[in-house]
Amino acid sequence: MVKTMEKFVVTPWEVKGEVNYDKLVKDFGTKKIDEKLLKRVERLTGKLHYMLRRGLFFSHRDFDIILNEYEKGQQFALYTGRGPSGQVHLGHLMPWIFTKYLQDKFGTELYFQMTDDEKFLFGQKEKLEETNKLAYENALDVIAVGFDPKKTFIFADTDYAKTLYPIAIKVARLTTFSTAKAVFGFKNESNIGSIFYPAMQAAPCFLPSILKGRNTRVLIPAAIDQDPYWRITRDVAPKLGFPKPAAIHSKFIPGLAEGGKMSASIPDSCIFTTDKPEDAKRKVMKAFTGGAATVEEQRKHGGKPEICSVFQYYAFLFEDDDKKLEERRNACKSGALLCGECKKELAERVAKFLKEHQKKREQAKKQLDKFVVKD
Amino acid sequence: MVKTMEKFVVTPWEVKGEVNYDKLVKDFGTKKIDEKLLKRVERLTGKLHYMLRRGLFFSHRDFDIILNEYEKGQQFALYTGRGPSGQVHLGHLMPWIFTKYLQDKFGTELYFQMTDDEKFLFGQKEKLEETNKLAYENALDVIAVGFDPKKTFIFADTDYAKTLYPIAIKVARLTTFSTAKAVFGFKNESNIGSIFYPAMQAAPCFLPSILKGRNTRVLIPAAIDQDPYWRITRDVAPKLGFPKPAAIHSKFIPGLAEGGKMSASIPDSCIFTTDKPEDAKRKVMKAFTGGAATVEEQRKHGGKPEICSVFQYYAFLFEDDDKKLEERRNACKSGALLCGECKKELAERVAKFLKEHQKKREQAKKQLDKFVVKD
Repeated sequence: MVKTMEKFVVTPWEVKGEVNYDKLVKDFGTKKIDEKLLKRVERLTGKLHYMLRRGLFFSHRDFDIILNEYEKGQQFALYTGRGPSGQVHLGHLMPWIFTKYLQDKFGTELYFQMTDDEKFLFGQKEKLEETNKLAYENALDVIAVGFDPKKTFIFADTDYAKTLYPIAIKVARLTTFSTAKAVFGFKNESNIGSIFYPAMQAAPCFLPSILKGRNTRVLIPAAIDQDPYWRITRDVAPKLGFPKPAAIHSKFIPGLAEGGKMSASIPDSCIFTTDKPEDAKRKVMKAFTGGAATVEEQRKHGGKPEICSVFQYYAFLFEDDDKKLEERRNACKSGALLCGECKKELAERVAKFLKEHQKKREQAKKQLDKFVVKD
Repeated sequence: MVKTMEKFVVTPWEVKGEVNYDKLVKDFGTKKIDEKLLKRVERLTGKLHYMLRRGLFFSHRDFDIILNEYEKGQQFALYTGRGPSGQVHLGHLMPWIFTKYLQDKFGTELYFQMTDDEKFLFGQKEKLEETNKLAYENALDVIAVGFDPKKTFIFADTDYAKTLYPIAIKVARLTTFSTAKAVFGFKNESNIGSIFYPAMQAAPCFLPSILKGRNTRVLIPAAIDQDPYWRITRDVAPKLGFPKPAAIHSKFIPGLAEGGKMSASIPDSCIFTTDKPEDAKRKVMKAFTGGAATVEEQRKHGGKPEICSVFQYYAFLFEDDDKKLEERRNACKSGALLCGECKKELAERVAKFLKEHQKKREQAKKQLDKFVVKD
C-alpha cells in the first residue's frame, strides 16, 4: 500500500506538521496505552480521567511498572516541568491538569522543574534574568491548577543548581557528545551549555531517590516531544544505581489557527492564562473551524469536527462529559449545530475558566513560598 | 638553520616532553614578561619575588593592564585553583606561594576554585564524592600556604554551583562546540559534562565583578597549561560586559625523575605535602641528577645543573637567595660539589619544609570555615 509521505517533525524544540501519533510511538520506541492498562488505572483510581478515556494521553514507558510497584506498596513520584520563555497558555495546562489528577488519585509528590537555563541556552530569551523571572510567574499558573502544597516542589534550575548540578554531571559523565548529537541533533555551532542541558533535565528523575535516600521511581506526565530526554536518562539510570524514569505521553493540543500545535510564538493561535477573558473570547470567535463556506451548505452537509480547532478545544479541555462531547460531534456533523453558536459557547467556557484561573493565580502569589524550593 | 623537531605537548590534561617555553608563548599568543614589566613590579612591590627574578613566572596576558589599573587605584582580584584528584604535591604549591606573594604585596582578594566536577568529569576519579572530599583536603594545603582568611575564598564547584552555574551558562551560551573542540580537542566520545566544563572554570573570572556589583578584573597566577581556559573566557568577557581576565603563567616544576613535570601519577617523581619527611628524603636521595657516572669523573668534569632535577628543586622552591643558587651552580659545574652532598642538603630542606607545612596544615583544619564559601 502506497501512502503519501508524512511530513511532520517532533523534537523538544519543534513540533511541525500533522503529527502521526502511531508513527511516533513506533519511532520513539514507546508503548501505546492499551485497554488493559486503562482498566487497571480505572480499578486503582475509581474513575478514568477523560484525557485517558479519549487517548489524549496515549503512550507510555514503564507506566505498567509504576503500577506494579504501587500495588506492592511502593510509592512513586511525579516529575514534570515547564520551559519559562513566556506566559503560560492553555496548551501547557493540559498535562498539568492530568498531573494533578495523578497526584490526587495516587497521593504522590510532584517535582516541578522550571528550566530557566534551557530557555536561555536555547536562545528563546536574551537574558537569563528574564527566564528566571518568568519561572516564578509561570509557577503561579502551576499552583493555580490546585496541586497539594505539602507534596509539590517547584524549582528553577539556576536557583536549585547546588542540588541539581552534582546529579546532572553524573548523568553527563555517562553521555557522550555522539549520543547527545544523535538524540537532539546538536551541531558544531551548538553552544556547549545547550549540549550539557539534557543532563540538567535528566537530574530531577533521580532527585526523589536522592532526597529520600531510597530509590523512588518517577513518572513523568508530559507531551511526547520531551521523550528524547527520558530516553537518554533511562540509559544511564541503571549505571547510576537508580530506577529508570517512567513516562506517560500526551498529544499536542491544537492551535486555534489551522494545523500545528498551540504555540506561544503565534499569539492568536493560543489563549494565554493571563489573557483578558474578553480578548480570549475574541480569539475563540475567529478560530479555525471545520465549518462549510456558507450556512446553507453547512446545514445541508454538516461540519467537520475532526479538523475543527474549536471541537478539539472541547475535547482537550472544555468538555469532560463524553456523552455531551459525542452529542456535540453529532450535532456538528448533522448540520444542526453551526460554528457561530459552537464558538460562542466555547468562548463563554474559556472566559469563565480564565476568570477562575486568574483568581487562583492571584491567590497563588501568597502561596509561592509554600511551593518553591531553592538551595 | 635546521632544528630537531620539538616534540612536546602542553594541554590542561597533559604535559609531555621537554617544554619549549618560547614556542609556547608564540603558540598560545601570550606575552613574555620582560625587563620593563619586572622593573615595574619591583617598583610597586619593593622586592621582586624570586619566581619572577628567575623567570619561573615567565609569560602573561594583560598583567600590564592590571598594573595600569592598580596604579590608578583600581583593585584587581586574584583567581587560581586546583583540580582535586589526589594529594597536593610540591609542584602545586609553587604557584600558590607566588599567589600569596601577590596577595601580600597588592592586598588583593583571592578566589580559589576547587574543581571537583572537572576531576570527576575527566575521569580521574570514579566518584564525585571522592573529588569533593579531596577538595577540602587539598584546601588545607592552600590555607597552610598562609593566605589571608579575610581576603581568601575557597570554593568547591559542586558546593558553589548555585552561584557558579548561572555565570557558567552565560559563558557557555557564547561558546560553540566548534570552539571548545578546537581549543580543548574534544571528540565525539567526550562526555557532555566535560564539554560544558570549561564554562565552569571560566565562571570565577567574573565572580568578583558579580559579587561586588562593579567590574573587577582578575589576575590568574597558574601554570601555562591552563591558558586555553582563559583564551575562551577572554573571548566572551566583552560580550558579557566584564573585563577580560589577565593571567600570569608559570613553568612546570620538573619531577624528581628524568624529564617531564612533577606528576602525581608517578608517585616517586614528586613529593606530596602529606609524605612523611623521611619518605620525602628518600625520594630526594634517589632523584635524577646531572652528575657523572663516577666521583672521579665528576670531580674532573663537574655536573650538569641544567638537566638536574635536584638543582631545579633548589631553583623553584628551596633556595630563594640568587647568590647562593649561583654559588651552588658553580660548585656543581666545577666538580667541587658532588650529588650526594647536594641531595642530602636538599633532603634536609625538604624535610624541614614538610614538617612546618604539615604543622600549618594541621592547624588549617580549624580554620577551614574561615576560608570556605558554599551556597
